[in-house]
Amino acid sequence: VRVAVELRRAYRLLNHGPATLVSAAHGSRHNVMAAQWVMPLDFDPPKLAVVVAADTFTRGLIEASGQLCVSLPTVGMADLVWAVGSASSAEVDKLERFHVATTQASKVTAPLIDGCVAWLECEVRPDVALARDHDLFIVEVVAAWADSDVWDGRELHFEGHPEKRTLHHVARGTFFATGERVKANEPG
Amino acid sequence: VRVAVELRRAYRLLNHGPATLVSAAHGSRHNVMAAQWVMPLDFDPPKLAVVVAADTFTRGLIEASGQLCVSLPTVGMADLVWAVGSASSAEVDKLERFHVATTQASKVTAPLIDGCVAWLECEVRPDVALARDHDLFIVEVVAAWADSDVWDGRELHFEGHPEKRTLHHVARGTFFATGERVKANEPG
Repeated sequence: VRVAVELRRAYRLLNHGPATLVSAAHGSRHNVMAAQWVMPLDFDPPKLAVVVAADTFTRGLIEASGQLCVSLPTVGMADLVWAVGSASSAEVDKLERFHVATTQASKVTAPLIDGCVAWLECEVRPDVALARDHDLFIVEVVAAWADSDVWDGRELHFEGHPEKRTLHHVARGTFFATGERVKANEPG
Repeated sequence: VRVAVELRRAYRLLNHGPATLVSAAHGSRHNVMAAQWVMPLDFDPPKLAVVVAADTFTRGLIEASGQLCVSLPTVGMADLVWAVGSASSAEVDKLERFHVATTQASKVTAPLIDGCVAWLECEVRPDVALARDHDLFIVEVVAAWADSDVWDGRELHFEGHPEKRTLHHVARGTFFATGERVKANEPG
């Protein structure tokens, strides 16, 4: 079940550095791309740093709409992540070509990608120099959701649902799955 | 054995989103802190985006020296990562207090943290507004190293050395270990 995530805890969906799918929509066009270079930048209000290359179709949609969604795909979605990360889509509708189902977001026009385990709806904070010089976008998370199988209201847990673990891209279609929990002892 | 990593492949040390230790030195002072909000920003020359909070002692050393090192700790170092991430150190020498051994870097004054599996020596590209508004530093990797047990010259591999897997911080001293490799099929 998809449940709302408190905004002040939304950074915990992304804190472990998972691979993501970044989606955007503007007018009648929409698109999705793979993005590993996404990380939290602040807690409350939650902000993210997102790298989106200049030659991508999704970038144009993000800049036109001022919005994007970040979805966290599972290990079973590795082929899809690699496919939408490799294919260009000025001409092809990647959502259609790769049979990607989506759900309407609550606060932005960008779609949420079905089958993922967490979703962050984001508004872009325009910064022309950052985008031009570094392909970097600073966005504010305005709504967040997670699959209640892996989100207990405070943290992600994958023990009971290994098939819902997230991915971490290494290079060229090779990923690491998210591994087991490690709890540090408090400093003595 | 610590081996040099080609700069154009240095992003692959950090691409999977591991927890890091960020170290810096200036004059007779040095320090280390935990940093999860570190990600690649460009391939060649390799650049990183690094978040360093304004109230940390390490930040002052980074700004004074214009340099920092990013080291990747292993699962066995979780207690240390949490300790140097929690303790403040305006007064305490964290390297000394937590018995952290270091090795001199090749191109920067910041020390490399022993026991880690990868190291990136970085020069800061000064951007006053980014640091002030977002605690964000853009750095260029000028040298990179990895433990040959886990680096084959192209990618990280942890199969043979589970004790050398990296960490991914979730929150409050809870981490995920880096999990098994997942290889995507090429899109059909």
